[in-house]
Amino acid sequence: MWKYAALLSYTGTDYCGWQRQKEASGTAPSVQGTVEAALQQITREESSVVGSGRTDSGVHALGQVAHFVLKSREWEPRILLKGFNAVLPTSIRALDIRPVPLDFHAQRSAERKQYSYFFQQGPSAIPHLEPLSWWIQKRLNLEAMNRALADLVGEHDFKPFQSSGARPGPTVRKVLEAEASFEPIGFPGGGLAGGYQIGFVRIRILGTGFLKQMVRGIAGTLL
Amino acid sequence: MWKYAALLSYTGTDYCGWQRQKEASGTAPSVQGTVEAALQQITREESSVVGSGRTDSGVHALGQVAHFVLKSREWEPRILLKGFNAVLPTSIRALDIRPVPLDFHAQRSAERKQYSYFFQQGPSAIPHLEPLSWWIQKRLNLEAMNRALADLVGEHDFKPFQSSGARPGPTVRKVLEAEASFEPIGFPGGGLAGGYQIGFVRIRILGTGFLKQMVRGIAGTLL
Repeated sequence: MWKYAALLSYTGTDYCGWQRQKEASGTAPSVQGTVEAALQQITREESSVVGSGRTDSGVHALGQVAHFVLKSREWEPRILLKGFNAVLPTSIRALDIRPVPLDFHAQRSAERKQYSYFFQQGPSAIPHLEPLSWWIQKRLNLEAMNRALADLVGEHDFKPFQSSGARPGPTVRKVLEAEASFEPIGFPGGGLAGGYQIGFVRIRILGTGFLKQMVRGIAGTLL
Repeated sequence: MWKYAALLSYTGTDYCGWQRQKEASGTAPSVQGTVEAALQQITREESSVVGSGRTDSGVHALGQVAHFVLKSREWEPRILLKGFNAVLPTSIRALDIRPVPLDFHAQRSAERKQYSYFFQQGPSAIPHLEPLSWWIQKRLNLEAMNRALADLVGEHDFKPFQSSGARPGPTVRKVLEAEASFEPIGFPGGGLAGGYQIGFVRIRILGTGFLKQMVRGIAGTLL
């Protein structure tokens, strides 16, 4: 048995989320199901691909770790990487593949995870950023957001931010870093669009683990 | 007569470029034609929208200035702005509308224009950045690119970079700034993807004017 970790990047727009579903006709495919089908096409063996988390429908991943076990033979990671990127749709890419010890687990071995929410603020959305961000007209107060985010750092019971459909279980989580920042986009004249500077407002939360829809709940509360 | 300048942002993916064409069925619409149709829908009068430049098929604009004249009555810029963004497809947005003197001309009054080329480098493309950038596997040498770009600053005959189908005319242009920079995308672990840092390589050229496909020619030469 050989175990591998994959670093995956995907746009979630056309997927029902990470987790494999009973894929009825007419429903959007899952990221997991698509990656598993690609792996089977490359290796001719069936194996589960376990992700570090279960992203919701429409959520993108910049770098999500997943693991899988191959039983028939050992593969050169470089060949698996090329295979994935030849077979997967362009909305999913493997950025890296590495051999890992058999006790590695994408979810249980994760020491930290980072979620980001991207907003655009201004008189209207910038079309290029539309699939990647949520447009809001009002000007956000980064200072106030950062004050609120600073209070989240540390070990807290995040039950209030959990989605209603979450499974029962411990709701204490540890947030390592939480910040709101502005990532500008360089215009020649700058500030032309009604005095707004064009760019993303990014809410970034780094933690040891998250509850279902916890980051979405926090982001929604901040606005 | 009232003249207005619009600051437009668009993704060029689904357009044949800026310039209005004889739009036969089955061909992609033009940005200009689409904006003119929206303006007519808002104001009930037909007018030409003159852009600061003629972008090619597939080229995006972050902030392109265009002007138009309205004859029937004066409009509140704020109303025109709202009208555009209500009527235009989401791939084109008006970021700002301002009244301008009648002698203003989007093309002839332009003092400087800025073009950017965005590249991704690394073992594979990041799906989110795919519509916005050109993926290349090799690692770019930013220092060497910046040395070459520094030589372009100033007044030069840029004829060698002009496309073959360009109209005859003067080929001396003035480049004000030219640089290559790396714009990183923050990963929690950083450098996971085969030692590559994820992000854009941006070639940015600011000048008083450009020849047809001059920036594309320069970017191609640098690689």
